[in-house]
Amino acid sequence: MNIILLSGGSGKRLWPLSNDVRSKQFIKIFKAEDGSYESMLQRVYRQIKQADSDASVTIATSKTQVSAIRNQLGDEVEISVEPCRKDTFPAIALASAYLHDVKGISDDETVVVSPVDPYVEDDYFEALKLLAKQASKGEAKLVLMGIEPTYPSEKYGYIIPDSSGDICEVKTFKEKPDVEAAKKYISCGALWNGGVFAYKLKYVLDKAHELMDFTDYEDLFNKYDMLTKISFDYAVAEQENEIQVMRFSGQWRDLGTWNTLTEAMDDPELDNVIVNETCENVNVVNDLNIPIVCMGLKDVIVSASPEGILVSDKEQSSYIKPYVDAIDQQIMFAEKSWGSFRVLDVEENCMTIKVTLNPGHSMNYHSHRMRDEIWNVINGEGIVTIDGVETSVTVGDVIKMCAGCRHTVAAITELKLIEVQIGEGISVYDKQKFELQS
Amino acid sequence: MNIILLSGGSGKRLWPLSNDVRSKQFIKIFKAEDGSYESMLQRVYRQIKQADSDASVTIATSKTQVSAIRNQLGDEVEISVEPCRKDTFPAIALASAYLHDVKGISDDETVVVSPVDPYVEDDYFEALKLLAKQASKGEAKLVLMGIEPTYPSEKYGYIIPDSSGDICEVKTFKEKPDVEAAKKYISCGALWNGGVFAYKLKYVLDKAHELMDFTDYEDLFNKYDMLTKISFDYAVAEQENEIQVMRFSGQWRDLGTWNTLTEAMDDPELDNVIVNETCENVNVVNDLNIPIVCMGLKDVIVSASPEGILVSDKEQSSYIKPYVDAIDQQIMFAEKSWGSFRVLDVEENCMTIKVTLNPGHSMNYHSHRMRDEIWNVINGEGIVTIDGVETSVTVGDVIKMCAGCRHTVAAITELKLIEVQIGEGISVYDKQKFELQS
Repeated sequence: MNIILLSGGSGKRLWPLSNDVRSKQFIKIFKAEDGSYESMLQRVYRQIKQADSDASVTIATSKTQVSAIRNQLGDEVEISVEPCRKDTFPAIALASAYLHDVKGISDDETVVVSPVDPYVEDDYFEALKLLAKQASKGEAKLVLMGIEPTYPSEKYGYIIPDSSGDICEVKTFKEKPDVEAAKKYISCGALWNGGVFAYKLKYVLDKAHELMDFTDYEDLFNKYDMLTKISFDYAVAEQENEIQVMRFSGQWRDLGTWNTLTEAMDDPELDNVIVNETCENVNVVNDLNIPIVCMGLKDVIVSASPEGILVSDKEQSSYIKPYVDAIDQQIMFAEKSWGSFRVLDVEENCMTIKVTLNPGHSMNYHSHRMRDEIWNVINGEGIVTIDGVETSVTVGDVIKMCAGCRHTVAAITELKLIEVQIGEGISVYDKQKFELQS
Repeated sequence: MNIILLSGGSGKRLWPLSNDVRSKQFIKIFKAEDGSYESMLQRVYRQIKQADSDASVTIATSKTQVSAIRNQLGDEVEISVEPCRKDTFPAIALASAYLHDVKGISDDETVVVSPVDPYVEDDYFEALKLLAKQASKGEAKLVLMGIEPTYPSEKYGYIIPDSSGDICEVKTFKEKPDVEAAKKYISCGALWNGGVFAYKLKYVLDKAHELMDFTDYEDLFNKYDMLTKISFDYAVAEQENEIQVMRFSGQWRDLGTWNTLTEAMDDPELDNVIVNETCENVNVVNDLNIPIVCMGLKDVIVSASPEGILVSDKEQSSYIKPYVDAIDQQIMFAEKSWGSFRVLDVEENCMTIKVTLNPGHSMNYHSHRMRDEIWNVINGEGIVTIDGVETSVTVGDVIKMCAGCRHTVAAITELKLIEVQIGEGISVYDKQKFELQS
């Protein structure tokens, strides 16, 4: 099975765990079989591999997510990188061209597209296989998954099938309705459109060439920032007459808000949390290294991360976005392809951060114009390069780097540094990258 | 007016703002006239000085609080340091001996004793003056303040006066009652015993010599750890026949729990807090440098500090103690006589802290057996002394200190350091102090 997982944009609706650089699919809150915690991304990837060990997975995403994906899934997974965000049609077209031109997948093979973030069980992946099988028959150009609605949601578009069969023709589509309209649709047998579908590769490539002027994957990639934003539904699905829908009645949950996410949490409390016996329906996600005590609360979500602290009634939590948008705060934590960093302290003209490099990884060779930096090695062993000169470092070593000097560090074992930045106008934009001659 | 302020023990009932080293009286949450925030201690000290600019204030407290008091009130305030905690009678006896033997106050002068932590207005201090005046008349050995009860509290002892006059004889005392008994006492004219009273110095000194074997202040101080724990009420007030009570009907609030403390907060939210319009009766005290967002909450207190985060229904918050007792966490923030420190990061065999020294102050000259330390100077100017050798330091300087070496730093201007501690078994107990030869 060829599967394209759409890894969507960063969102603030799960703040403080998600923010501009950290999307909800990377938050580790689901208990894996071995007792450790995994993210939505890791969960869905593991589920796919369990359902079909030969599955060829390509993740379509923006470049801001590449580090986090590599960090969580390793270097093997294929990533189709969108140079910028252009909605689902350009993203799917680019990923399809990637499959064809980079991975050499033939025109005639089927491809399944699924968002990365629904919370589903194994039957979903069995359904994806059936979806691919149906598309391969060629009865229709496009085969959609139609999800049996569990309530009259205003969040989804609806697919109106022409019969009640497991697989049938699509009669029409309905945009996100209000509750009353949704009730009416459902009473007529409508299904949720979850953005899950299968097609033969040639179909989408032809559509792409029809709607956009490009030669191949590389050309499309280079032109990407000039493309028009348009959704796959609008550009393709709603225009297609030869289109089928396959009914899916298993679990399919969109964990886009704290309210829905907490319903799927296996443990109501994670890490260093005390919830006393007077609490009722309380979920706590603690990503800070200090304890949280909850007393006498009902229907409340508490979430704490280096970015901030949310305390909200569960239902209210879906209205978080404008409040978080109003917060003007620098990024306090980020996962990188080489490890992660966390801001420990911010002063005028000084910032202290903790840098963790994974074994065998190194950061970019770079310099800063406006700040000096000091590295205090607190764990592990590595090789520091400063202006081309390599030095071995270990616990207790201190390295001073003046503004302008080029520097990097490679971790031999897991390497942890306390980095003290000193200078006027400290900014993430003050960074020049260089090739490291080796 | 001679006034002894009893600065009581550390408490966990206002965790995470109070803990083993930081008592509630030091938390800055009251708005002063200039718009800045002041602590209970600073508030009461300011109020005393406004009521009587010549007031001679002595704070009776344990040595663990001396740094915080000096930090908040400066070097002028007199402190009678209890070598260990021995309840109120030994504390008041020691402070009385301090007044007599160290400050040279005569036997015949009156002294007023008050806890440091009731939340009161200016009329309270006028009442203290009247209390002193009444004691100076010599009609009774001891004149208590009797606080008009506002509800049948189970938290206070009650004074039963023999009449309804403003000043009258005490008929008897009642221990902390249950609500029913409290109602009965109040209907008979009982008053709260807030631990506020006045006496002539000689009276308490005589009582002290009667009950304890000592010669003078120094001798009592040296024997302090062998004294029996006993309250002033039990040892003195309840045994005294010549005792009066003076009625006080002004504001007098014990802010010992989050529930009562938040009632006295001028601003429901402090620092970097968003409380949306669906919240009702919500107080937030944020002592972290990250934002807190509250949504859809009712009757809730949220308090965050480097020690932890409390989210509690206001009424439930009075039952916090056992939960906080169960938390085994190192001290993350402390005020010192020379400034303050805050733990930024804890790893196995490594701790990173931020040290702030006030101008003109220095830490103790000391060494550690089990850890190396690195100072990264991030703000200000100072003089570092290592094994007797002085060096000027400024922003960007790095100083490495190996285990065993003696070191200190004196701040010329406000000095901030990032201190990286590296070693096995990092502990606050691994510290040897030395005299600095200058």
